[in-house]
Amino acid sequence: MMAINSSAHHDDIADIGVGLNQATVAFPADEPLHLDSGKTLGPFTIAYNTYGSLNAAKTNAILICHALTGDQHVANRHPLTEKVGWWSELVGPGKPIDTDRYFVICPNILGGCLGSTGPASINPETGAPYGLKFPVITIGDMVAAQHRLIDHLGIYQLFAVLGGSMGGMQVLEWASRYKDRVFAALPIATAAWHSSQNIAFHEVGRQAVMADPNWQRGDYHAHGVVPRNGLAVARMAAHITYLSEDALHEKFGRNLQNRSDLTFTFDADFQVESYLRHQGSTFVDRFDPNSYLYITRAMDYFDLAAENGDVLANAFRGTRTRFCVVSFTSDWLYPTRESREIVQALNAVAANVSFVEIESNAGHDAFLLDEPEFFATIRGFIESCAAKRGLPTLDQED
Amino acid sequence: MMAINSSAHHDDIADIGVGLNQATVAFPADEPLHLDSGKTLGPFTIAYNTYGSLNAAKTNAILICHALTGDQHVANRHPLTEKVGWWSELVGPGKPIDTDRYFVICPNILGGCLGSTGPASINPETGAPYGLKFPVITIGDMVAAQHRLIDHLGIYQLFAVLGGSMGGMQVLEWASRYKDRVFAALPIATAAWHSSQNIAFHEVGRQAVMADPNWQRGDYHAHGVVPRNGLAVARMAAHITYLSEDALHEKFGRNLQNRSDLTFTFDADFQVESYLRHQGSTFVDRFDPNSYLYITRAMDYFDLAAENGDVLANAFRGTRTRFCVVSFTSDWLYPTRESREIVQALNAVAANVSFVEIESNAGHDAFLLDEPEFFATIRGFIESCAAKRGLPTLDQED
Repeated sequence: MMAINSSAHHDDIADIGVGLNQATVAFPADEPLHLDSGKTLGPFTIAYNTYGSLNAAKTNAILICHALTGDQHVANRHPLTEKVGWWSELVGPGKPIDTDRYFVICPNILGGCLGSTGPASINPETGAPYGLKFPVITIGDMVAAQHRLIDHLGIYQLFAVLGGSMGGMQVLEWASRYKDRVFAALPIATAAWHSSQNIAFHEVGRQAVMADPNWQRGDYHAHGVVPRNGLAVARMAAHITYLSEDALHEKFGRNLQNRSDLTFTFDADFQVESYLRHQGSTFVDRFDPNSYLYITRAMDYFDLAAENGDVLANAFRGTRTRFCVVSFTSDWLYPTRESREIVQALNAVAANVSFVEIESNAGHDAFLLDEPEFFATIRGFIESCAAKRGLPTLDQED
Repeated sequence: MMAINSSAHHDDIADIGVGLNQATVAFPADEPLHLDSGKTLGPFTIAYNTYGSLNAAKTNAILICHALTGDQHVANRHPLTEKVGWWSELVGPGKPIDTDRYFVICPNILGGCLGSTGPASINPETGAPYGLKFPVITIGDMVAAQHRLIDHLGIYQLFAVLGGSMGGMQVLEWASRYKDRVFAALPIATAAWHSSQNIAFHEVGRQAVMADPNWQRGDYHAHGVVPRNGLAVARMAAHITYLSEDALHEKFGRNLQNRSDLTFTFDADFQVESYLRHQGSTFVDRFDPNSYLYITRAMDYFDLAAENGDVLANAFRGTRTRFCVVSFTSDWLYPTRESREIVQALNAVAANVSFVEIESNAGHDAFLLDEPEFFATIRGFIESCAAKRGLPTLDQED
């Protein structure tokens, strides 16, 4: 009985015991964000979730940076999808990111669509959604906005900053721009610059959105329509890149969907077709198409070397942050060699860095899964940093 | 002077000296094709090009099977794009497929859009283009139509059948269905069944076409429109899969397109974006969107093991054909292990098979390029088969 119900039981308590707090902070127009493009953005709002409690010394804060289609609902039930949080296996009481001991913060990124200011927000100059009047932003701009949030919370140094994929890009940007503010950094399944192939896949997604007549040059709000089909195609294409060929083969192979034979039609005969269509159609219920354009653009623009005189090591010169770089063997979107480039740059400036390549056949999505070696790596690194930082460790509590 | 003009000169003579003949053959309604779906198709037309001359014994014919977006213009200037033929480096006088000695035949596939019957052809029952009334066809159906062409030409045994990608699937189907009719078979950069990942990419492409309102459920001809945007997106997504990450990196890296800095817009800042957009927009000028749907569907349905009691070796049992299986190291669409599966099945029935994995970083598209080891492999295999078949070889001519 317990075994059968354990999953449901887990779901029921997903929001209990993690000390969830959902909040927003609005930065006024006279304190705008100075963007990498040279433009300014203000007023702007950051929506964020916290889990656990900040200690008196404000030294136990962990910032989680989410990925392209992620959001601030790390460890609580999602308000739109009603699914448990995307990293609820990793974050919670007694988990590797232990909300009994750490104060976990996850902001919705700037440009996002779940409460932080993005292209679907109201443009104060027009009273209508920004649409394409929203400025093109960068990963650095997202991090600058988070920096304002952390200041607002009265925290000087984050104990740790972690994130996977685009979240990892933000981690790298934090560690580069605000060296004194990051004790430990965990860039996971990421890269210091977006590769040509990844730009190419993003461009396909953007063209799919823009090819949808309902996109209306970004002004779909005014027309009361949504470019659902275009965004669904974009999501389908992207989703393939998040999985490995092995994972697709093991999960679906050439299995047919609820039928015993080919139909000789264009129906979703194969399970993998049905799965992709489902991924596409559910995504559009929770994501703003223009946000998808802006965030993919920010990722494509990301190049931490270019920001630092074309020498990646310059990004980290003088750092005292402890780094743990993690990659996954079957991740072809951010392959291990791109993590090695980060590690080499950190080594070049004699930074304190651990590097772990996790054996997994789950592809890029492995960073979202409870891969035992991955979770053990994070737990171990966080514990060792806690000891160095003078925070309670598991050993002390035992 | 000669050096500067040599390329143009080469182009000018592209159609001369290869003995080009362009023809069509129409099979009447009372001789329909019996399709794998159980339906029949008739009348139907096959358009084909030939190069060189058939010998008196009719033993020197080489059939070339083209890929998804290929056509019969193997070694002559393309009538729509005005580019030289897609395999003109491989096929011509003195080339590995030597049109001075072989009679080369390349038909446009059934379901195609360059003269053979396909969804853009007139449906005799309605007097209008078939659109979605065209039956879903298979690789086996394409080959059955080619078989009718070869009968029509009075040729019993093809000296060789070769093709890459979907062309390779046709080669395998030929060697399996018509064992006595194929002396030598060269399946290149292909697989005996379409993988889950490849089905997934095709499904994205189809959904992109179908999401375009101009598609009109396949009836765009009647509406005087073309789903150009959808087909362009499909082509862009597919094109990424034809290249390797290394090739994209070397060709484009993060280079900017005709600008010195990022524009902070959604313009094609990066060369790879501009390249993909160009690939998408030029493709729609030469390809029928419904053909794209039907041909990708045929590829997805391809499973030579399933056709043979789920045992691939059964497909080749009793064969006396000589096989040369070729794969490329950086081809992630049809990776070497899928060629090995073909080789293992051939070995299981003690077939005569050579297997060569060519070192190349050009990805799947390597089969279209003048990779020296690849061309040397084809030349060597063809020469050795010619000797076995009693056809003139290069040594004899010297």
